[in-house]
Amino acid sequence: MKPILEVAASCGIAEQHIELYGRYKGKIEPGIREEARNRPDGKLVLVTAMNPTPAGEGKTLTTIGLAQSLNAIGRTTIAALREPSLGPCFGMKGGATGSNKAQLLPSEDINLHFTGDLHAITAAHNLLAAMLDNHIFQGNALQIDTNRILWKRAMDMNDRSLRQIVVGLGEGNGSVHESGFMITTASEVMAVLCLSEDAQDLKDRLSRMVVARNMAGEPITAAQIGAVEAMTVLLKDAIKPNLVQTAEGTPAIVHGGPFANIAHGCSSVIGTKTALKLADIVVTEAGFGADLGAEKFFDIKCRQAGLQPDAAVLVVTVKALKYNGGASKNELDQPNMEALRAGLPNMKRHLENLRKFGVPVMVAINHFTSDAEDEIALVKEECARLGVKAELSDVWAKGSEGGREMASALLDMLEQETAQYTPLYPDDLDLKAKIETVVREIYRGEGMKLSAKAAAQIEELERQGFGRLPVCMAKTPYSFSDQANLLGAPEGFTVQVKDITLSAGAGFVVVHTGKIVTMPGLPKHPAAERIHLDEHGEVAGLL
Amino acid sequence: MKPILEVAASCGIAEQHIELYGRYKGKIEPGIREEARNRPDGKLVLVTAMNPTPAGEGKTLTTIGLAQSLNAIGRTTIAALREPSLGPCFGMKGGATGSNKAQLLPSEDINLHFTGDLHAITAAHNLLAAMLDNHIFQGNALQIDTNRILWKRAMDMNDRSLRQIVVGLGEGNGSVHESGFMITTASEVMAVLCLSEDAQDLKDRLSRMVVARNMAGEPITAAQIGAVEAMTVLLKDAIKPNLVQTAEGTPAIVHGGPFANIAHGCSSVIGTKTALKLADIVVTEAGFGADLGAEKFFDIKCRQAGLQPDAAVLVVTVKALKYNGGASKNELDQPNMEALRAGLPNMKRHLENLRKFGVPVMVAINHFTSDAEDEIALVKEECARLGVKAELSDVWAKGSEGGREMASALLDMLEQETAQYTPLYPDDLDLKAKIETVVREIYRGEGMKLSAKAAAQIEELERQGFGRLPVCMAKTPYSFSDQANLLGAPEGFTVQVKDITLSAGAGFVVVHTGKIVTMPGLPKHPAAERIHLDEHGEVAGLL
Repeated sequence: MKPILEVAASCGIAEQHIELYGRYKGKIEPGIREEARNRPDGKLVLVTAMNPTPAGEGKTLTTIGLAQSLNAIGRTTIAALREPSLGPCFGMKGGATGSNKAQLLPSEDINLHFTGDLHAITAAHNLLAAMLDNHIFQGNALQIDTNRILWKRAMDMNDRSLRQIVVGLGEGNGSVHESGFMITTASEVMAVLCLSEDAQDLKDRLSRMVVARNMAGEPITAAQIGAVEAMTVLLKDAIKPNLVQTAEGTPAIVHGGPFANIAHGCSSVIGTKTALKLADIVVTEAGFGADLGAEKFFDIKCRQAGLQPDAAVLVVTVKALKYNGGASKNELDQPNMEALRAGLPNMKRHLENLRKFGVPVMVAINHFTSDAEDEIALVKEECARLGVKAELSDVWAKGSEGGREMASALLDMLEQETAQYTPLYPDDLDLKAKIETVVREIYRGEGMKLSAKAAAQIEELERQGFGRLPVCMAKTPYSFSDQANLLGAPEGFTVQVKDITLSAGAGFVVVHTGKIVTMPGLPKHPAAERIHLDEHGEVAGLL
Repeated sequence: MKPILEVAASCGIAEQHIELYGRYKGKIEPGIREEARNRPDGKLVLVTAMNPTPAGEGKTLTTIGLAQSLNAIGRTTIAALREPSLGPCFGMKGGATGSNKAQLLPSEDINLHFTGDLHAITAAHNLLAAMLDNHIFQGNALQIDTNRILWKRAMDMNDRSLRQIVVGLGEGNGSVHESGFMITTASEVMAVLCLSEDAQDLKDRLSRMVVARNMAGEPITAAQIGAVEAMTVLLKDAIKPNLVQTAEGTPAIVHGGPFANIAHGCSSVIGTKTALKLADIVVTEAGFGADLGAEKFFDIKCRQAGLQPDAAVLVVTVKALKYNGGASKNELDQPNMEALRAGLPNMKRHLENLRKFGVPVMVAINHFTSDAEDEIALVKEECARLGVKAELSDVWAKGSEGGREMASALLDMLEQETAQYTPLYPDDLDLKAKIETVVREIYRGEGMKLSAKAAAQIEELERQGFGRLPVCMAKTPYSFSDQANLLGAPEGFTVQVKDITLSAGAGFVVVHTGKIVTMPGLPKHPAAERIHLDEHGEVAGLL
């Protein structure tokens, strides 16, 4: 690893703009954006993927590897990525920093407490919850309806027992009411932090968050609880983007990690905009497949932040295509041209969708050693037929060397094609029509069906002036539809909208198409059982 | 502020032993203790106080000021202090870093997230809770009795609604059972971290923590849950002591902050031992008054860690003496020789008690502008009568200059008198006799009365081999007795022991003499309503 000050210098950040967290991590002070105000922005490239499968598609890996490859061929490139959450590291998932020759360093630190951003978000979230309940305890001047407290608690841990709880039991402990914990990444505070332009915008967004309804059904905001200034204090460092490096010393801004279903699943706006001022090219990613992640990147993040994305890279794998073509999880290592062919429509639909946002698109085939030559050839052939560049990516095994063709193809595309970014729908479409547009244009369903509850919620939100917000779809990532088992490119389905919730601070309306669990549980044998310090005091078992 | 590397150098810590957290905070790597293994230890001085009153006695302030004064007269001195907890900063208390010319810097950082130690402890605590509930959910191979789950959750926040909760409601969310949150400082993980000798001892202690009973009533430990290695990973940085500085650049090791009632209320053993290798004199403090804090410092911290304390300084104030002599809270600014005289027995008893531990003792009179000359003279006179040095401390207003006499008197005492530290009772006294000894020798009660429950608990603990542990008294800090309103030097009372709990990892048995709240609530107008970022982006309203 290079000292982080050296990494900072490599992309033009002077020492006084870095606050060190040890030798290899730093926070970037906001002054750098001020200083670089008049510099032109670099190109913004989104890495997204086909629908995720149990085999793992390597989207983060490809993002890191692509940034390394672009740097290796002489373009100053920064990877802008999400911060891992502690909870899942100890559960099923393990770390979230790429791996082998395309990973973020120091990976253990980044996967654990990192620079404390998630802890700060947890504290800010729970301060608001405590002040809300305290407001009720101390007389409830705002006439909050204790049956309509919307703000729960947050913890960065996988703990299913805390999903649904009753608080305030015992004497003198406040009003008895239902509550629950979500994992910190699902907190609206996280989404707010990720979508904020700066510290002032952070405060304004926190102020708008709706935490309860009063007896008259009117929204009660965090500002009314009096918590916003103190929350801003708790978040004053968390809002600064973190600088680390990849395995090849490429600068990486790793900042913010919102849920990809009830939130928008993209790294922070501040991190992205800082990176755009410092680099020729910024490579970023969005959660889940392109039907969720890319759609939200374009319709929420870019729309709100006024970002102008220049290209998208769709990550596919031979394994995931075969899985989407009907092969079972255990036979993905076996050559299977039939399943592969049957899975290609999944890729095709994602490519068509991405073009609807007005950006040029290419395919990166993340290479596994089990891929057969003719399988790879078939994927490339299909891409050629669709008029899309496709290159093999071998960044896991070879680092930047393994992504050279992919990077060159991207550069060619950026030179030859000019993006005309446009969101899928305008702000002034009503909420119902926005949902219908996403269902029709992106998922390709026949339509959607609103539950009576959801219809009433939409009516209330429109009436209260929230109808201009974009929609944030909470849907299974495994299928274009709202049914996890409909793989490939399903048609003829109707999306069931069960519930609508408001994230007024983040600035979107969440559309729930099924039961979304915001607090994961631990598996029978959690990763925590294997994680330990080795004989040299180094973390082992995490990656 | 000096750069922390300069502060480190001033007490002989080379750059490679400091991990920077920004420019003004650092963690001290364990290598320094290894390197300094053969150096003689400095002198260890405990700052303690008479019983606390609403006026505030300034124990932390005096500790910081005394360290500054000792440095100013040429003795390399380090202050070893506790870390503040976030929760109370947003509640009633405000910051906990001294003030004005005797404070820790950077005070806002130290009061907020600091280097993340409390967040790490929270995460480790809650990982164990999640793994425990998950063990039950996944089949309960250990046959844990869900009515005897002892391990609750922790959060660094004042939130009374979380004191008593029911978890696991809803389908698929585990077993429904009672739980609750304590503030992080009350977690046994905090006590364990503070009493550990090193990383190995930390792991061993975590392993011994009892988290539940099985159907047969046998203790189930954290080790059996399989959580210990992962907890150790979460705590790998938290266990390293933090180096900061005082307002005059005196080095301060600020590390660990356990509750002073259900835990022992002293900063970390690792921090103290590191400081002893680096300084001529180490000034440390313990929570609450000397009846609780000093007793636990000697009987738990020094006993377990093999520390040899050299002296104690008792902080008194004219206000607190008058309050203990019957003056009401609102008239403490008024001269009142009668109340002052009536309060002196409180000081006298603490001084007698401290001598029972074999250390020389002096008095520091923390000066307030409202103190009358003849009031101060009377306190000094009483001390002279008792054969105890007493000096005025004006460190709040004047920094080291205001503590010069106090520091000189301490140096004289250290030269003239040799400590013969001895704990109050031996390990092999049974638990009941240990409690009785503390009640008789320190509190001066007539005796104690065990509830039937407590008697049964003692019997069980003795039977299971925990009888050799020291006792950790959880008692009101406001009185020598277990009744908060018995001020001064009460006699003739009987201490009611209601409950006994085991902290097997920390290595003590907690004796509950009343209802101890381990999760504070917020007041009607929490400090959080005033805390904000000012127009320069600096934290305001915290101190």
